[in-house]
Amino acid sequence: MSEAWLNKVNWSDVGLIPVVTQEAGSNKILTLAWMNREALKLTAQTGEAVYWSRERKKLWRKGEESGHTQKVLEILLDCDQDAIVLKVEQIGGIACHMGRHSCFFLRLQGEAWIETEPVLKDPKDIYG
Amino acid sequence: MSEAWLNKVNWSDVGLIPVVTQEAGSNKILTLAWMNREALKLTAQTGEAVYWSRERKKLWRKGEESGHTQKVLEILLDCDQDAIVLKVEQIGGIACHMGRHSCFFLRLQGEAWIETEPVLKDPKDIYG
Repeated sequence: MSEAWLNKVNWSDVGLIPVVTQEAGSNKILTLAWMNREALKLTAQTGEAVYWSRERKKLWRKGEESGHTQKVLEILLDCDQDAIVLKVEQIGGIACHMGRHSCFFLRLQGEAWIETEPVLKDPKDIYG
Repeated sequence: MSEAWLNKVNWSDVGLIPVVTQEAGSNKILTLAWMNREALKLTAQTGEAVYWSRERKKLWRKGEESGHTQKVLEILLDCDQDAIVLKVEQIGGIACHMGRHSCFFLRLQGEAWIETEPVLKDPKDIYG
Protein backbone atom coordinates (compact mmCIF):
# COMPACT_ATOMS: atom_id res chain seq x y z
CA MET A 1 0.00 0.00 0.00
CA SER A 2 1.42 3.36 -1.04
CA GLU A 3 1.55 6.00 1.65
CA ALA A 4 1.15 9.05 -0.57
CA TRP A 5 -2.39 9.55 0.73
CA LEU A 6 -1.03 9.72 4.30
CA ASN A 7 1.35 12.48 3.26
CA LYS A 8 -1.59 14.65 2.20
CA VAL A 9 -2.65 14.92 5.82
CA ASN A 10 -1.50 18.00 7.74
CA TRP A 11 -0.39 16.38 10.96
CA SER A 12 -0.07 18.74 13.94
CA ASP A 13 3.35 19.55 15.35
CA VAL A 14 2.95 16.54 17.64
CA GLY A 15 1.89 14.35 14.72
CA LEU A 16 -1.84 14.12 15.43
CA ILE A 17 -5.11 14.98 13.72
CA PRO A 18 -8.56 15.36 15.37
CA VAL A 19 -11.09 12.78 14.24
CA VAL A 20 -14.86 13.26 14.47
CA THR A 21 -16.68 9.94 14.48
CA GLN A 22 -20.20 9.97 13.17
CA GLU A 23 -22.69 7.13 13.19
CA ALA A 24 -23.92 6.17 9.74
CA GLY A 25 -27.68 6.17 9.51
CA SER A 26 -28.47 8.30 12.56
CA ASN A 27 -25.70 10.78 11.62
CA LYS A 28 -25.18 11.28 15.33
CA ILE A 29 -21.73 12.51 16.38
CA LEU A 30 -20.33 9.87 18.72
CA THR A 31 -16.83 10.98 19.69
CA LEU A 32 -13.95 13.29 19.01
CA ALA A 33 -10.66 11.44 19.22
CA TRP A 34 -7.16 11.68 17.77
CA MET A 35 -5.08 9.72 15.30
CA ASN A 36 -1.44 9.65 14.42
CA ARG A 37 -0.18 8.40 11.08
CA GLU A 38 -0.05 4.77 12.21
CA ALA A 39 -3.59 4.89 13.61
CA LEU A 40 -5.00 6.28 10.37
CA LYS A 41 -3.11 3.70 8.33
CA LEU A 42 -4.38 0.85 10.52
CA THR A 43 -7.93 2.23 10.40
CA ALA A 44 -7.85 2.22 6.59
CA GLN A 45 -6.22 -1.20 6.42
CA THR A 46 -8.40 -2.99 8.94
CA GLY A 47 -11.72 -1.17 8.45
CA GLU A 48 -12.00 -0.70 12.21
CA ALA A 49 -11.33 2.55 14.05
CA VAL A 50 -7.90 2.81 15.64
CA TYR A 51 -7.06 6.01 17.51
CA TRP A 52 -4.09 7.42 19.37
CA SER A 53 -4.72 7.73 23.09
CA ARG A 54 -3.16 11.01 24.19
CA GLU A 55 -3.59 9.99 27.81
CA ARG A 56 -2.03 6.53 27.54
CA LYS A 57 0.32 7.57 24.73
CA LYS A 58 -0.35 4.48 22.66
CA LEU A 59 -2.45 3.16 19.83
CA TRP A 60 -5.97 2.44 20.93
CA ARG A 61 -8.07 0.03 18.92
CA LYS A 62 -11.53 1.35 19.77
CA GLY A 63 -13.43 -1.37 21.61
CA GLU A 64 -10.37 -3.43 22.50
CA GLU A 65 -11.59 -3.63 26.09
CA SER A 66 -15.30 -2.87 25.80
CA GLY A 67 -16.03 -4.82 22.63
CA HIS A 68 -17.63 -1.63 21.29
CA THR A 69 -15.63 -1.53 18.09
CA GLN A 70 -16.40 0.79 15.18
CA LYS A 71 -16.75 -0.55 11.67
CA VAL A 72 -15.50 2.17 9.33
CA LEU A 73 -17.65 2.90 6.30
CA GLU A 74 -16.10 6.17 5.14
CA ILE A 75 -13.03 8.32 5.84
CA LEU A 76 -13.34 12.03 5.00
CA LEU A 77 -10.72 14.79 5.10
CA ASP A 78 -11.41 18.52 5.21
CA CYS A 79 -10.32 21.42 3.01
CA ASP A 80 -7.25 22.19 5.13
CA GLN A 81 -6.40 18.49 5.50
CA ASP A 82 -6.19 18.91 9.25
CA ALA A 83 -9.37 17.19 10.44
CA ILE A 84 -11.01 13.86 9.68
CA VAL A 85 -14.56 12.54 9.81
CA LEU A 86 -15.09 8.80 10.17
CA LYS A 87 -18.47 7.38 9.33
CA VAL A 88 -18.94 4.21 11.30
CA GLU A 89 -21.26 1.50 12.42
CA GLN A 90 -21.03 1.52 16.22
CA ILE A 91 -21.00 -2.05 17.47
CA GLY A 92 -23.05 -2.42 20.66
CA GLY A 93 -24.56 1.06 20.20
CA ILE A 94 -22.29 2.51 22.87
CA ALA A 95 -19.41 4.82 21.93
CA CYS A 96 -18.81 6.55 25.27
CA HIS A 97 -16.67 5.05 28.03
CA MET A 98 -19.38 6.20 30.42
CA GLY A 99 -21.86 3.78 28.85
CA ARG A 100 -23.71 6.28 26.70
CA HIS A 101 -24.45 6.16 23.00
CA SER A 102 -22.53 9.38 22.34
CA CYS A 103 -19.85 11.22 24.27
CA PHE A 104 -21.63 14.54 23.61
CA PHE A 105 -24.27 14.24 26.28
CA LEU A 106 -23.87 17.59 28.05
CA ARG A 107 -26.03 20.38 26.63
CA LEU A 108 -25.61 24.01 27.59
CA GLN A 109 -28.87 25.32 28.99
CA GLY A 110 -28.60 28.89 30.21
CA GLU A 111 -25.49 28.72 32.34
CA ALA A 112 -25.49 25.01 33.09
CA TRP A 113 -24.42 21.80 31.38
CA ILE A 114 -27.36 19.39 31.49
CA GLU A 115 -27.08 15.63 30.94
CA THR A 116 -29.13 14.60 27.92
CA GLU A 117 -28.44 10.93 27.24
CA PRO A 118 -29.20 7.89 29.35
CA VAL A 119 -26.50 5.50 30.51
CA LEU A 120 -27.25 2.38 28.46
CA LYS A 121 -24.86 0.14 30.33
CA ASP A 122 -23.02 0.61 33.61
CA PRO A 123 -19.29 1.15 32.86
CA LYS A 124 -18.52 -1.43 35.58
CA ASP A 125 -20.34 -4.00 33.45
CA ILE A 126 -18.56 -2.86 30.30
CA TYR A 127 -15.02 -2.88 31.65
CA GLY A 128 -15.46 -5.53 34.36
CA MET B 1 -23.65 36.06 33.25
CA SER B 2 -21.80 33.71 35.59
CA GLU B 3 -18.74 32.01 34.11
CA ALA B 4 -18.88 28.81 36.13
CA TRP B 5 -19.99 26.89 33.03
CA LEU B 6 -16.88 28.08 31.19
CA ASN B 7 -14.70 26.71 33.97
CA LYS B 8 -16.11 23.22 33.36
CA VAL B 9 -14.39 23.14 29.98
CA ASN B 10 -10.99 21.44 29.81
CA TRP B 11 -9.12 23.98 27.73
CA SER B 12 -5.92 22.69 26.10
CA ASP B 13 -2.55 23.95 27.30
CA VAL B 14 -2.85 26.74 24.74
CA GLY B 15 -6.38 27.54 25.89
CA LEU B 16 -8.35 26.04 23.00
CA ILE B 17 -10.99 23.38 22.44
CA PRO B 18 -11.91 21.68 19.13
CA VAL B 19 -15.43 22.41 17.94
CA VAL B 20 -17.37 20.19 15.54
CA THR B 21 -20.10 22.12 13.78
CA GLN B 22 -23.07 20.12 12.61
CA GLU B 23 -25.98 21.32 10.53
CA ALA B 24 -29.35 20.88 12.23
CA GLY B 25 -31.81 18.98 10.09
CA SER B 26 -29.36 17.36 7.66
CA ASN B 27 -27.02 16.44 10.55
CA LYS B 28 -24.16 16.98 8.15
CA ILE B 29 -20.79 17.82 9.71
CA LEU B 30 -19.78 21.18 8.28
CA THR B 31 -16.48 22.14 9.90
CA LEU B 32 -14.00 21.47 12.62
CA ALA B 33 -12.74 24.70 14.14
CA TRP B 34 -11.37 25.93 17.46
CA MET B 35 -12.57 28.16 20.26
CA ASN B 36 -10.91 29.84 23.18
CA ARG B 37 -12.81 30.90 26.27
CA GLU B 38 -13.81 34.25 24.82
CA ALA B 39 -15.07 32.68 21.58
CA LEU B 40 -17.26 30.20 23.44
CA LYS B 41 -18.61 32.93 25.67
CA LEU B 42 -19.45 35.15 22.70
CA THR B 43 -21.02 32.21 20.86
CA ALA B 44 -23.33 31.53 23.80
CA GLN B 45 -24.12 35.22 24.31
CA THR B 46 -24.78 36.15 20.69
CA GLY B 47 -26.24 32.88 19.35
CA GLU B 48 -23.85 33.04 16.41
CA ALA B 49 -20.70 30.95 16.02
CA VAL B 50 -17.49 32.72 16.98
CA TYR B 51 -14.25 30.75 16.66
CA TRP B 52 -10.58 31.35 17.33
CA SER B 53 -8.52 31.49 14.16
CA ARG B 54 -5.28 29.67 14.90
CA GLU B 55 -3.81 31.01 11.68
CA ARG B 56 -4.69 34.66 12.19
CA LYS B 57 -4.49 34.40 15.99
CA LYS B 58 -7.70 36.32 16.58
CA LEU B 59 -11.39 35.87 17.20
CA TRP B 60 -13.23 34.96 14.05
CA ARG B 61 -16.93 35.61 13.82
CA LYS B 62 -17.89 32.95 11.30
CA GLY B 63 -19.25 34.67 8.21
CA GLU B 64 -17.83 38.10 9.04
CA GLU B 65 -16.46 38.33 5.49
CA SER B 66 -18.55 35.80 3.56
CA GLY B 67 -21.92 36.52 5.18
CA HIS B 68 -22.16 32.77 5.82
CA THR B 69 -22.87 33.08 9.51
CA GLN B 70 -24.00 30.18 11.69
CA LYS B 71 -27.03 30.49 13.92
CA VAL B 72 -26.37 28.35 16.99
CA LEU B 73 -29.21 26.09 18.12
CA GLU B 74 -27.37 23.87 20.57
CA ILE B 75 -23.99 23.66 22.33
CA LEU B 76 -22.88 20.20 23.47
CA LEU B 77 -19.84 19.16 25.52
CA ASP B 78 -18.37 15.67 25.72
CA CYS B 79 -17.65 13.32 28.62
CA ASP B 80 -14.07 14.57 29.03
CA GLN B 81 -15.14 18.21 28.59
CA ASP B 82 -12.48 18.65 25.93
CA ALA B 83 -14.54 18.78 22.73
CA ILE B 84 -17.65 20.67 21.67
CA VAL B 85 -20.41 20.07 19.14
CA LEU B 86 -22.36 23.06 17.84
CA LYS B 87 -25.66 22.46 16.13
CA VAL B 88 -26.28 25.29 13.74
CA GLU B 89 -28.33 26.67 10.93
CA GLN B 90 -25.84 27.48 8.18
CA ILE B 91 -26.81 30.75 6.58
CA GLY B 92 -26.27 30.65 2.81
CA GLY B 93 -25.80 26.88 2.88
CA ILE B 94 -22.02 27.25 2.53
CA ALA B 95 -19.71 26.54 5.45
CA CYS B 96 -16.43 25.97 3.58
CA HIS B 97 -14.15 28.81 2.50
CA MET B 98 -13.77 26.97 -0.79
CA GLY B 99 -17.46 27.50 -1.55
CA ARG B 100 -18.69 24.07 -0.58
CA HIS B 101 -21.49 23.11 1.76
CA SER B 102 -19.15 21.19 4.05
CA CYS B 103 -15.39 21.31 4.58
CA PHE B 104 -15.27 17.51 4.62
CA PHE B 105 -15.39 16.95 0.89
CA LEU B 106 -12.41 14.62 0.41
CA ARG B 107 -13.25 10.93 0.66
CA LEU B 108 -10.62 8.23 0.87
CA GLN B 109 -11.12 5.76 -1.95
CA GLY B 110 -8.46 3.08 -2.07
CA GLU B 111 -5.29 5.16 -1.81
CA ALA B 112 -6.66 8.47 -3.08
CA TRP B 113 -8.62 11.40 -1.69
CA ILE B 114 -11.55 12.02 -4.05
CA GLU B 115 -13.57 15.27 -4.15
CA THR B 116 -17.19 14.56 -3.31
CA GLU B 117 -18.98 17.90 -3.04
CA PRO B 118 -19.64 20.51 -5.70
CA VAL B 119 -18.44 24.09 -5.37
CA LEU B 120 -21.69 25.97 -4.84
CA LYS B 121 -20.17 29.42 -5.22
CA ASP B 122 -16.79 30.54 -6.49
CA PRO B 123 -14.69 31.77 -3.54
CA LYS B 124 -13.82 34.84 -5.62
CA ASP B 125 -17.51 35.74 -5.60
CA ILE B 126 -17.79 35.04 -1.87
CA TYR B 127 -14.80 37.07 -0.72
CA GLY B 128 -14.71 39.61 -3.56
